[in-house]
Amino acid sequence: MDKILRINMGAQGGPKITVTPVGEYAGLGGRAMTSSIVSKEVDPLCHALGENNKLVISPGLLSGSTAAMSGRLSVGCKSPLTGGIKEANAGGQPSQMLARLGYAAVVLEGKPKDDTLYKVLINKDGAKIVPDNSLRLLGNYDLVEKLKKEFGDKISVISIGQAGEMKLTAASIACTDMELRPTRHAGRGGVGAVMGSKGVKAIVIDDAGMKMRSPKDPEAFKDATKRWVDGLKKHPVTGQGLPSYGTNVLTNVINEAGGYPTHNFMWGRFVGSSKISGETQAQTEIDRGGSATHGCHRGCVIKCSGTYMDKDGHYITKQPEYETVWAHGGNCGIDDLDSIAMLDRLDDDYGLDTIEMGATIGVAMEAGLAKFGDAQAAINLVKEVGKGTPLGRILGSGAGTTGKVYGVERVPVVKNQALPAYDPRAVQGMGVTYATSTMGADHTAGYAVATNILGVGGKLDPLKPEGQVELSRNLQIATAAIDSTGMCLFIAFAIMDQPETFQALIDCINSFYGLKLTGDDVTALGKSVLQKERKFNLAAGLGPEQDRLPEFFTKEPVSPHNITFQVKDKDLDKVFDW
Amino acid sequence: MDKILRINMGAQGGPKITVTPVGEYAGLGGRAMTSSIVSKEVDPLCHALGENNKLVISPGLLSGSTAAMSGRLSVGCKSPLTGGIKEANAGGQPSQMLARLGYAAVVLEGKPKDDTLYKVLINKDGAKIVPDNSLRLLGNYDLVEKLKKEFGDKISVISIGQAGEMKLTAASIACTDMELRPTRHAGRGGVGAVMGSKGVKAIVIDDAGMKMRSPKDPEAFKDATKRWVDGLKKHPVTGQGLPSYGTNVLTNVINEAGGYPTHNFMWGRFVGSSKISGETQAQTEIDRGGSATHGCHRGCVIKCSGTYMDKDGHYITKQPEYETVWAHGGNCGIDDLDSIAMLDRLDDDYGLDTIEMGATIGVAMEAGLAKFGDAQAAINLVKEVGKGTPLGRILGSGAGTTGKVYGVERVPVVKNQALPAYDPRAVQGMGVTYATSTMGADHTAGYAVATNILGVGGKLDPLKPEGQVELSRNLQIATAAIDSTGMCLFIAFAIMDQPETFQALIDCINSFYGLKLTGDDVTALGKSVLQKERKFNLAAGLGPEQDRLPEFFTKEPVSPHNITFQVKDKDLDKVFDW
Repeated sequence: MDKILRINMGAQGGPKITVTPVGEYAGLGGRAMTSSIVSKEVDPLCHALGENNKLVISPGLLSGSTAAMSGRLSVGCKSPLTGGIKEANAGGQPSQMLARLGYAAVVLEGKPKDDTLYKVLINKDGAKIVPDNSLRLLGNYDLVEKLKKEFGDKISVISIGQAGEMKLTAASIACTDMELRPTRHAGRGGVGAVMGSKGVKAIVIDDAGMKMRSPKDPEAFKDATKRWVDGLKKHPVTGQGLPSYGTNVLTNVINEAGGYPTHNFMWGRFVGSSKISGETQAQTEIDRGGSATHGCHRGCVIKCSGTYMDKDGHYITKQPEYETVWAHGGNCGIDDLDSIAMLDRLDDDYGLDTIEMGATIGVAMEAGLAKFGDAQAAINLVKEVGKGTPLGRILGSGAGTTGKVYGVERVPVVKNQALPAYDPRAVQGMGVTYATSTMGADHTAGYAVATNILGVGGKLDPLKPEGQVELSRNLQIATAAIDSTGMCLFIAFAIMDQPETFQALIDCINSFYGLKLTGDDVTALGKSVLQKERKFNLAAGLGPEQDRLPEFFTKEPVSPHNITFQVKDKDLDKVFDW
Repeated sequence: MDKILRINMGAQGGPKITVTPVGEYAGLGGRAMTSSIVSKEVDPLCHALGENNKLVISPGLLSGSTAAMSGRLSVGCKSPLTGGIKEANAGGQPSQMLARLGYAAVVLEGKPKDDTLYKVLINKDGAKIVPDNSLRLLGNYDLVEKLKKEFGDKISVISIGQAGEMKLTAASIACTDMELRPTRHAGRGGVGAVMGSKGVKAIVIDDAGMKMRSPKDPEAFKDATKRWVDGLKKHPVTGQGLPSYGTNVLTNVINEAGGYPTHNFMWGRFVGSSKISGETQAQTEIDRGGSATHGCHRGCVIKCSGTYMDKDGHYITKQPEYETVWAHGGNCGIDDLDSIAMLDRLDDDYGLDTIEMGATIGVAMEAGLAKFGDAQAAINLVKEVGKGTPLGRILGSGAGTTGKVYGVERVPVVKNQALPAYDPRAVQGMGVTYATSTMGADHTAGYAVATNILGVGGKLDPLKPEGQVELSRNLQIATAAIDSTGMCLFIAFAIMDQPETFQALIDCINSFYGLKLTGDDVTALGKSVLQKERKFNLAAGLGPEQDRLPEFFTKEPVSPHNITFQVKDKDLDKVFDW
């Protein structure tokens, strides 16, 4: 990972590839890399779909090594959805492969002269970019099938579906999993629209002939990775809950806690929750010959995913995540797992953020475009996006735009990005993260659910404002650091509760790079990432006034706790005072 | 004008009317009144369509008196288009009538419990509010006809069309003119959507039995108003240019100056300009039995308007303004006056801001929804808004939203409000006003064209950045003050060039109210209005980063001068340093 691949899409005579040493960005990975390049090289006031934005794709520090869970790929840019900086990350195979090929980052820059569509191939011989208009408006599934025919089945693919080509602000970037299915998405913030604006439909990665990245101190690394895996297997969340039921184990937990946003954040509990819970989902998957325990990339030991088949045993999609099941399920009053799986499949195929789309359908239902609970209507609405009709373009622009176009007041967005699956009134720490994250509303930016609800990293009353700012601050710092390692965020459960597992992670990094980092250095890394992102956002016009939840969360109490969001504005403004 | 009429639309048991003394708002009118009430009573972070926004309607200080030109009505609220404070004003009859009935302001507050549509009647006996769902989705023209049947033809009407009912952010509020036609619009910022969110379709005003407002010193007032009218008649712009050709006299002038935005701000000159110029328009009106010299309210001596007939001599619309002719004309490559008149008529009927809609159609053409120059396609697109189709809702949400939904980069908006008819690269002073106005892009907020192009108030090279900040600052201060008097902004031409006419205006106010104001007091009033608006906007999250033109104005030189916008960001930040 000592080089950066840059493709200037706007060069005279067509796209121009240059490979440069990593230089000033040495030692960075994942979110630290993407946010460093974006904050240094992108004008915060540029048009997000214009020549001055850059799409930065970066493996994590440990990606491509034997360290378990190191397969996350970060994607960064100025977000066309939020107007601020964006880092969205995904699992799948591309991160490991890119890292083994030695690329610390791939940067798409400039603006194409016309609307030619390109594919990029990166392998041991270097990189090339080829026009290929035959890929136009293919869904991610068909696209990958076509690329497999051309490049074989040892590749991995980073791609956009129709939504990214249409530059819709709910568009995601897909990464293929171990089965070469486009199921792992850098979902949030419209990163797919930025890839679309660069005219790049797919990046095909082939690491044939490359070896696993080798550590500076192999013995110490081997020892550290063993302790690392042991720690993950020991913790009840990473060792049992997630492997057995996936993230959707949360449906019953969050519903029981009264923090399950239902009918577009009208209520905090969903009567149909048991029909769409992780337990029901896992059993359905097993009964139909799918799988309830499956990893998204080689080297994963948590295996939180699965395979969802239809009633006849045919593959529909990977196991929908908790947030997807919530967004397309309870949030829309839908309690049918098959419909939710179909919505997940459509989102993956068109290249759409499932959280944004579920929240959008909820807003559309509130606007009267469909009835809450009408699963077929929800499917039809998402299909409009694939077709690119005016209605589809509205919906594909996300919950904020849909709310504006239809004059809806209850629109659950922060910085124009949809809130995920935890009501900030019933999980107040989550509300602090939603409000203040540099990313817009994002549960992964500082997952206060852990301590508010799950009792991981201590316990803090989810209904009281006290302590939530400190909790969110610490989690946001830790997350920014973890997002830079290439590690799946789910490792956080283990390292928050088990100091020896946190130490094992640091030992992995130290032995791999020949460093002597301490926990304080990790904290310092997280802070420095957040500071760069905050500086970018301020210059882009996202100040404290945008660090707020929508007004209705402070006006409308949510059942069953009948509580509003209680954290005061002046306290929200202290999250980044450290 | 010693009382304020408030209607709480969200009261238990239905809307509740209260009339209170003007109290702390005494001595304010027009924009000073609306911006004072909004900045004091509305939470800057509230949802613009929610219960905590207020719609404030206020006559000017001299409205209802015999002073010429005093018929402007201000409408203020938090804007659902810009997210900041908004004042939009209109001519027509309502301002004079409201003032004679003694109302310094009408305030619509709260949020209706259901979607019942209401009409308000204000006359000498007081005010009442009545549900009337038979008005639903009527265009402004049919609405006024219906209200005439009920209330007679001595009324005036403030109303919304379909766009306001749909809460679209390009929705205007219509005021009837002397012929009881809904042709004068408080156009900008989506004020019609706020009226729609309050559930009020129409405010019917009947001043039968009321007298002209009487001045404190009748003799001095009579003398001052005479000097005032003499001054207006003496100045070439207010005495000759505007009466003969209306505002559209500017088409040839601005085109010649290379500042006429053409094809969605691609070029600075339009080849078809002579076909749609004020000279051609006036001749067409006269030839067809219409009129080229007509006032929008009693007491107007400039008479910049007219009546536009079709080829068979049937009324289509009032004389379209220069900005309308530009927006629906050259900006879209359309050089057919009849089509432009039809677009103006449709906008007035649906209740849409003509500037926002013309800019929106330009963006839609850039997105490929229609060809530049295709007048019928433009008409069809605007009709979509009236029908409320998904496409119509996108377009009715304005240029910014249309650009986002279709992934267009060249979107001419500041604070999400469309730029009017002067290219900021060729009229750099105008660019300063667009960028920094509290209102979003708005030519009326500080009409630098006067000094940059027309040689009114001195001369300043329009292509150079030097001096533009000072020019825009002084104009913005003066405009904020004029907008508070109820005076039509066109008086500015005369008072900028003729100190004795400025003095006559001050004498009008002094003799009417028994005051001893000086020019410095007028400046102080303008500054205080701007300060309140700026404070609101900052608290709403509109800081210096939003005081910028879209990126393309600094990247793409415009022909024929091949120049970009040259004023530096740091200088834009000095506009309000006084």
